[in-house]
Amino acid sequence: MTQDFTPGTVYGVGLGPGCQDLMSVRADRLIRGATHIAYFRKKGRKGHARSIVEGLLAPGVVEMPMEYPVTTEIPFDDPRYNALLSTFYSRCVAQLIEMSEAGGDVVVLCEGDPFFYGSFMHLYTRLLNRVPVSVVPGITGMSAAWTATGQPITWGDDVLTVLMATLPEAQLAEHIAQTDALVVMKIGRNLDKLRRALVHTEREADAWLIEYAAMTNQRVIPFSEVEESVPYFSIVLIHGNGRRP
Amino acid sequence: MTQDFTPGTVYGVGLGPGCQDLMSVRADRLIRGATHIAYFRKKGRKGHARSIVEGLLAPGVVEMPMEYPVTTEIPFDDPRYNALLSTFYSRCVAQLIEMSEAGGDVVVLCEGDPFFYGSFMHLYTRLLNRVPVSVVPGITGMSAAWTATGQPITWGDDVLTVLMATLPEAQLAEHIAQTDALVVMKIGRNLDKLRRALVHTEREADAWLIEYAAMTNQRVIPFSEVEESVPYFSIVLIHGNGRRP
Repeated sequence: MTQDFTPGTVYGVGLGPGCQDLMSVRADRLIRGATHIAYFRKKGRKGHARSIVEGLLAPGVVEMPMEYPVTTEIPFDDPRYNALLSTFYSRCVAQLIEMSEAGGDVVVLCEGDPFFYGSFMHLYTRLLNRVPVSVVPGITGMSAAWTATGQPITWGDDVLTVLMATLPEAQLAEHIAQTDALVVMKIGRNLDKLRRALVHTEREADAWLIEYAAMTNQRVIPFSEVEESVPYFSIVLIHGNGRRP
Repeated sequence: MTQDFTPGTVYGVGLGPGCQDLMSVRADRLIRGATHIAYFRKKGRKGHARSIVEGLLAPGVVEMPMEYPVTTEIPFDDPRYNALLSTFYSRCVAQLIEMSEAGGDVVVLCEGDPFFYGSFMHLYTRLLNRVPVSVVPGITGMSAAWTATGQPITWGDDVLTVLMATLPEAQLAEHIAQTDALVVMKIGRNLDKLRRALVHTEREADAWLIEYAAMTNQRVIPFSEVEESVPYFSIVLIHGNGRRP
């Protein structure tokens, strides 16, 4: 069969940490010029990715919100959780392919950097070899977090370890004990577990919590002063202290 | 003494991985509007940071190249090496403060992200509390590298470890054995040592070398096919393979 049309490209565009002027010039151009955009959001919410680009979009842009299925009643490690998400991603991909095959480019808005613990990856692997896909890297939330602390994260030959607080406590402690500099993400309900791992490794006093890095409500707090809960956009870090002239 | 002038701000501006449109919108604006710029370079070279902004600068911009002292004859761990660099950084800082106190903002061009293994940090710590300093984060070279491979670096709760190849072989191997995803920088003359650490941990087959990520001469090569030397702008990585629906 001969294709007599050119499919559009699906762009996975890193928005950076959540402040418009920390987007890349390439992301800014793609978003302002977009005719079709897509983004993840929770049901009933505007969506954080969508909020970041507020005011940048061209009039008449076609928006495709991709609403996560409600999963709160299914445990994370239940196979039904994965099945539900997998069906959801496949349905999103079908829509993106339809838009692409109609000849339009689609800009998928991705918080942070698409290939760094991002949700776009789940679309990406399913889009590959079916339509043209292009990924635009972004400034990570962790870069914004260490910039917010006013202290470099790594010096000389410091080792940096990035952990998700969803890991078991023993694994968290093991990695925390062995690294110079540390970044921990996905804290939320894992705050107490993370605290125990930091205390166990005697590193709690060096840790900082950064809430909403690079956003208007940014806050930098010594970890030891953190109360019982933290917002979704929270990152814990410990600065390296390596060789410096 | 009353100060009857407002000192200028020294901006440490992350340029990102080396491609103009991967700079942030904020960096792009600061650089185009700059009256004074400063950047590190090797003696007799144009300087990579300076090359990245070619064509963006306003006419009449004042340029302050900061030329690294020649250190090739002094071993890295010789105290004279640190002393020489320390004197050099102090001299640069004196010049930046002079510019700032004359009332002009100065944009210091920083490859990648200033607080992530950057040289700007050595100026930053010496400028603090003396003149206003502002840091603009950037897209890291490693983000450009994993984007170049066309594969996400981390999934689910993968652990990511960032290592400098300047570390001793045993430490490299120890960290490589314990991580899911891996980034190694500062490879250069440490290539053989890194190769031994990757072979020892049986992870060579999963490693990739990315040369000049995001630049026009970008190259992605399986690590096992890497020859005897690699360019300065090289990053080795191993992708995580974690949970995915």
